[in-house]
Amino acid sequence: MKQLGPIPAGYEAVDGVLAIAGKPVTHWVDQAGTTPLFLYSADHVRQRVADLRAAMPDRLALHYAVKANPFPRLLSLMTQLVDGFDIASGGELEIVRGAGVPLDAVSFAGPGKRDAELEAAIRAGVTLNLESEGEAARALAIAERLGVTPRLAVRVNPDFDLKGSGMKMGGGAKPFGVDAERVPALVRTIRESGAEWRGFHIFAGSQALDAEAIADTQAQALALAAKLAEDSGAPLPHCNLGGGLGIPYFPGDTPVDLPLVGEKLAEQFASLPDVLAETAFCIELGRYLVGEAGVYLARIIDRKESHGEIFLITDGGLHHQLAASGNFGTVVRRNYPSAIATRFDVPVEEESSIVGCLCTPLDKLADKGGFPRAEVGDLVAVFCAGAYGASASPASFLGQGPAAEMLV
Amino acid sequence: MKQLGPIPAGYEAVDGVLAIAGKPVTHWVDQAGTTPLFLYSADHVRQRVADLRAAMPDRLALHYAVKANPFPRLLSLMTQLVDGFDIASGGELEIVRGAGVPLDAVSFAGPGKRDAELEAAIRAGVTLNLESEGEAARALAIAERLGVTPRLAVRVNPDFDLKGSGMKMGGGAKPFGVDAERVPALVRTIRESGAEWRGFHIFAGSQALDAEAIADTQAQALALAAKLAEDSGAPLPHCNLGGGLGIPYFPGDTPVDLPLVGEKLAEQFASLPDVLAETAFCIELGRYLVGEAGVYLARIIDRKESHGEIFLITDGGLHHQLAASGNFGTVVRRNYPSAIATRFDVPVEEESSIVGCLCTPLDKLADKGGFPRAEVGDLVAVFCAGAYGASASPASFLGQGPAAEMLV
Repeated sequence: MKQLGPIPAGYEAVDGVLAIAGKPVTHWVDQAGTTPLFLYSADHVRQRVADLRAAMPDRLALHYAVKANPFPRLLSLMTQLVDGFDIASGGELEIVRGAGVPLDAVSFAGPGKRDAELEAAIRAGVTLNLESEGEAARALAIAERLGVTPRLAVRVNPDFDLKGSGMKMGGGAKPFGVDAERVPALVRTIRESGAEWRGFHIFAGSQALDAEAIADTQAQALALAAKLAEDSGAPLPHCNLGGGLGIPYFPGDTPVDLPLVGEKLAEQFASLPDVLAETAFCIELGRYLVGEAGVYLARIIDRKESHGEIFLITDGGLHHQLAASGNFGTVVRRNYPSAIATRFDVPVEEESSIVGCLCTPLDKLADKGGFPRAEVGDLVAVFCAGAYGASASPASFLGQGPAAEMLV
Repeated sequence: MKQLGPIPAGYEAVDGVLAIAGKPVTHWVDQAGTTPLFLYSADHVRQRVADLRAAMPDRLALHYAVKANPFPRLLSLMTQLVDGFDIASGGELEIVRGAGVPLDAVSFAGPGKRDAELEAAIRAGVTLNLESEGEAARALAIAERLGVTPRLAVRVNPDFDLKGSGMKMGGGAKPFGVDAERVPALVRTIRESGAEWRGFHIFAGSQALDAEAIADTQAQALALAAKLAEDSGAPLPHCNLGGGLGIPYFPGDTPVDLPLVGEKLAEQFASLPDVLAETAFCIELGRYLVGEAGVYLARIIDRKESHGEIFLITDGGLHHQLAASGNFGTVVRRNYPSAIATRFDVPVEEESSIVGCLCTPLDKLADKGGFPRAEVGDLVAVFCAGAYGASASPASFLGQGPAAEMLV
């Protein structure tokens, strides 16, 4: 039997069935009228934001990275909870606009911004996190043509990375941002152009669980910001310290020690150099805000035995849950947390594998896990489905189409 | 410098630019009016089918596995070239219907067929490759309710696998098909039900390059089909021998020795046991028919240097080319064949990495390859993009949306 990842805190059974927002998931599936279904808990997101606000220094603003989950109703909820939004494309600009996000609270990072995307962002008053000198020149030319003062920040490629992070975004040659040593010259060019100078975006990695490593990276980001601001000869209006806070997906993973991260950052803030005295700071979180708030529900279509192994075949699969299937950014496949949602209070009775309906051996949601004995018609739940699920999976593969999504 | 995969035969430069259907790709991009663009060559597909027809025994029919590429104009072309179509979902049924595919030439395999999909397939006269006894019971009940004679085959989970295949679909416990020893009983049930008995589907693996291994697997499939037909006490009307023929993607890969596969299969056909004397055989190919016929074109938006490395940042990326980015079914990332399409006759001038526009380090199309020096505005080509490209990638990721597609 292979271990399953840890089910996030806050999920309980009502009448034996996994419950979200106080009601069994069968209720929500009936409401949606279909499976597979991504179900997002507004309360879970609110609690997560409250925990962050409680742990972090007041001075730290909270941004939501839209790429983690661009579901419009979730974005609308976020407008009540966070201080800013980060987008990664012109497509996401249209999504946040449609969800009623105030566009002056939006910043746009991404290494391959097309001219049309730069133009749309500049027109909308979105802050551009510039990824290169070439992009800066294009943005300034477009702004001049439009007669608009662009809001420009520089994404810095830091010389350090976030230790233990799932995705390293700094530390060496990268397609993201501008190498630190070239940043001061670029800042001078931007300031001399008459653009609104917005500051730095320093992103060293994501999906880390080690609070000490996160705190260490934040300290390094602050030191780098101070040095670059000094070298640029200009005070720093704003600094995005990146993200980095991960969630437990796999057996043995434990949650980030949030109070420790907050404490360490408060210490840093208490002794900032003069050049950062007036700087507004934020962190940009996606997965950490919404990942554990989502559950993916699929219905068992067939229960099969093959050479003594049990396969629970569902109407879902990797076309909605690419990362959970082990096919996105993982080298060795490990099990996400999952459960038989309609037998959530039943102990382990057998070893079985939960697979999707696709005709490929890649389509595995749980490999040889310990589950209650499940039958055709039961619902399975894959947890940690709130981030990089629906939008990060090949929904059209094998003619399947997208899953339903609900915020409750 | 890391090696790139081998560019498929048949791609040449016209006026220095990669050409497809005799015209430089810049012509086709102008016609499409946008990048990124998947460009599929009808001539390439025709030639591939002609090569197969020449190499394989006349008795072997040729089916197209729609999942490899469901682009409607490509499906329409295929109706002129192949003898049958294999689908993997109710969604694909609607796609082939819309493309004018004759539905009595269609079979449907897939481990998690919903009742609504079974019903649509039975109504359409599609052959169902049944994946379990439970699915057989559901199909029979639905057919009875509809008053339609269903066309039923059994997908066999063979006891062998295809050596060296990229995807093993047999040999041990699998969610696909029915374990061989349970097949005869299921065949009897189907025949006694009054359904139209269609035969076996035996799929042992895919994406193999070793002709001997493919031939060996086909021989084993024939032996298994004969044994199961004997044990079932019924002649076998039809047998789908699966696919298996792969294409070279990576450095060192070489094409399948097709004449050898054909020769060996002809030898097998010459000495079939009586129970298979009247059997109609087919193979089911997807990737092998269309994979090398497609090229993915993206435009360079930025040329960046970071710590001495060159990054060519394109408007494409893993949202269209998940497998080429190394994130779909690969353990260690290796480079697909790629080129600077607008400098296709220029020798290697520098080491550079081609990356996508997504804000993630996973979005890499070519890692540290040898390329001509390319500039903003140049087009890059990723080859082997005709199969498992557009439809097998998370097109909506980071708000990007699908690429354009053209058959020329």
